[in-house]
Amino acid sequence: MGKMISSIVNMKNGFDFKILKTSAKSKARRGILKTPYGDVQTPAFVTVGTKGTVKSLTPQNLEHVGTQMVFVNTYHMVVSGALSVVAKTGIHQFSGIQKPIITDSGGFQMFSLARQSPHIIQGEGGSSEQPPHLVKITDDGVEFRSPINGDLFYFTPEFSIDAQRRIGSDFAVAFDECVPYGSSDEYTKNAMTRTHRWAERSLQQFNNQTKKQLQQLFGVIQGGCFEDLRKTSAAFISSLPFFGLAIGGVSVGETKKEMREQMQWVMDGIQRDSRPRHLLGIGEFDDIVDAVAMGIDTMDCVIPTRHGRMGKLYSFKKSKVKNKNDSILVENILEIDIIKSQHKSDLSAIDTDCMCYTCHHFTKAYIHHLFKQRELLGYHLATIHNLHFVEQFFSRIRSAIEEDCL
Amino acid sequence: MGKMISSIVNMKNGFDFKILKTSAKSKARRGILKTPYGDVQTPAFVTVGTKGTVKSLTPQNLEHVGTQMVFVNTYHMVVSGALSVVAKTGIHQFSGIQKPIITDSGGFQMFSLARQSPHIIQGEGGSSEQPPHLVKITDDGVEFRSPINGDLFYFTPEFSIDAQRRIGSDFAVAFDECVPYGSSDEYTKNAMTRTHRWAERSLQQFNNQTKKQLQQLFGVIQGGCFEDLRKTSAAFISSLPFFGLAIGGVSVGETKKEMREQMQWVMDGIQRDSRPRHLLGIGEFDDIVDAVAMGIDTMDCVIPTRHGRMGKLYSFKKSKVKNKNDSILVENILEIDIIKSQHKSDLSAIDTDCMCYTCHHFTKAYIHHLFKQRELLGYHLATIHNLHFVEQFFSRIRSAIEEDCL
Repeated sequence: MGKMISSIVNMKNGFDFKILKTSAKSKARRGILKTPYGDVQTPAFVTVGTKGTVKSLTPQNLEHVGTQMVFVNTYHMVVSGALSVVAKTGIHQFSGIQKPIITDSGGFQMFSLARQSPHIIQGEGGSSEQPPHLVKITDDGVEFRSPINGDLFYFTPEFSIDAQRRIGSDFAVAFDECVPYGSSDEYTKNAMTRTHRWAERSLQQFNNQTKKQLQQLFGVIQGGCFEDLRKTSAAFISSLPFFGLAIGGVSVGETKKEMREQMQWVMDGIQRDSRPRHLLGIGEFDDIVDAVAMGIDTMDCVIPTRHGRMGKLYSFKKSKVKNKNDSILVENILEIDIIKSQHKSDLSAIDTDCMCYTCHHFTKAYIHHLFKQRELLGYHLATIHNLHFVEQFFSRIRSAIEEDCL
Repeated sequence: MGKMISSIVNMKNGFDFKILKTSAKSKARRGILKTPYGDVQTPAFVTVGTKGTVKSLTPQNLEHVGTQMVFVNTYHMVVSGALSVVAKTGIHQFSGIQKPIITDSGGFQMFSLARQSPHIIQGEGGSSEQPPHLVKITDDGVEFRSPINGDLFYFTPEFSIDAQRRIGSDFAVAFDECVPYGSSDEYTKNAMTRTHRWAERSLQQFNNQTKKQLQQLFGVIQGGCFEDLRKTSAAFISSLPFFGLAIGGVSVGETKKEMREQMQWVMDGIQRDSRPRHLLGIGEFDDIVDAVAMGIDTMDCVIPTRHGRMGKLYSFKKSKVKNKNDSILVENILEIDIIKSQHKSDLSAIDTDCMCYTCHHFTKAYIHHLFKQRELLGYHLATIHNLHFVEQFFSRIRSAIEEDCL
């Protein structure tokens, strides 16, 4: 396996992003993201494999469902204690996932998970108003306790970049502070300013490293729910020499309207930028379509895999599939709750047109039985189906852009 | 898929069992059990798929690990409410498992699980001494409450045979009463006598059914830990025209010595019988070897799959594998507890000579990480390995018989 990887790397040394076409109807872009682990056709879904495993699936299964790229969380790799082991081989060999992998900075989980922790450290730095209680944030970095065992961790831009390098992802993300929903203008502005300084430090640390040809860095645009801050952040982050631009903190917006507003402010600020654009943590079907229409190239989200494990399975309505525009694309998706008793005796597949292993071999009745009995195979088969479905959905999106229908 | 099944059935209409060779060194038999779903090379391991799923594995995975035959529990199919649905297609199509499937009578789980239940029904029938408290046993059948939801069920030989026919297994098992360890001579004798009457009723019900060519029936020898009863039961059950003979209640013996004694009494009683012999619920490596040496052809056990999900993984010691006799066969097996910290950084495979998907692609360090994080993929990969290992072990056993080494 080691040999195989080397030959791939030699064959395609380096990274590239090409925009093949922009839709005549929107800002949607059809592109190719070249990586040492293969080409990613964009817009692309990035499947979440938090701890170096897409929950319940083997790398072989990922191949089958058509996964193009995987997202691993630096926070979890560090807090779980796996970092030192992963560092020995790199995440691709460790996990067996022979796909391009992006790691995040650790910021998002640190703030969101640490806030749920019983280990309270009084916040410092930031504004005098309501600081995130469970972490200690200074301009230098973030100290927090593991919600699992209370161990103390200290993340800085330098630590995050080093950790991501040790993980060996293809794409790393600059260290950032993600503010909670409802943060004030002042608090959000301070966090953004800190994120900008951390972006510069992340870049510097990244460039200081010797072996940089096999990893690229994304900057993160923050700014919360404030138009001026989002635009300031878009302008600042895009002025730095990152390989790509990520948009953070949009997923914490309470309404879809607020989410779209924030995305629009950012996209307006970077519309002429030809670098790849990644939207962090977004992935409901209507959000996907709107994000792509605004010019997003890649996005990661736990929803399809989490829904799978919850028994929420996707299906295309067959009655009026036209694939002509975005609203029809989304309106034709059904979410089946397989645990409901109405599926107990249903001998049809989840989606009769679906070509995935699950739909090809099993009925709704069997999947229902597995979920009712909490059988592990249920989560496996459901995850296969949902991921295959999402990849098909992105394939339709790419076709729609090529045909100027989105 | 439906078509494929039909063609297999037409091609090999019916069942057969041939003993190819008996070891010069023991009573071990090397045979072929022919079924509509393919030939089973014996001695064979029967993988447990309690609720119509081998926990965490797809039928494709079973193909990969070399599973020859699967064991489904009638009790669970009835109590889960799945029976009426399975009956529509049969268990093979329902589960996608295109292998010979054996169902048990429901007796074992009924007694062992119902005894753990909080729903107590005062026992009737049987002796005045210590009856199984949580089930009501009469000569007609067994009434018990589901430990899951308290629903009342009534199993009789006729009900069990009908349920197994509706499940559509290749091999059904006659309804029997399995006594708890420590039962008295009198209680055990009464239970055995009832089991014999139930064996006759099971046979009659089985023969009354119209479509019987696609299923065969095993009788069950009981008799607890008493030599006279075991021999009486072996003589009686083997006098009836069952397709095969199963040995029940041996797995409840407290010591390995008692288990072997009971097996020996039975095997002495049926040593000239050429029908297939199935040992119910046994599967530790030393037990497997001893059972085979006594003339057992097939056996089912939850241990390899359960051990897998617990992180107990099998490996052959490489130092002194000679495969010359049974003791060496067993002495060369290691059980690795993958959750232990000693495996955290171990970049070798569970078993470096193993050809399974797990050992071919993943290190102990990765499997350790998955188990520590309770990731579903860990249970999946561990189960693949353990079942592949057990199939390899049986393959060695078959070779050893062919070479008169066992």
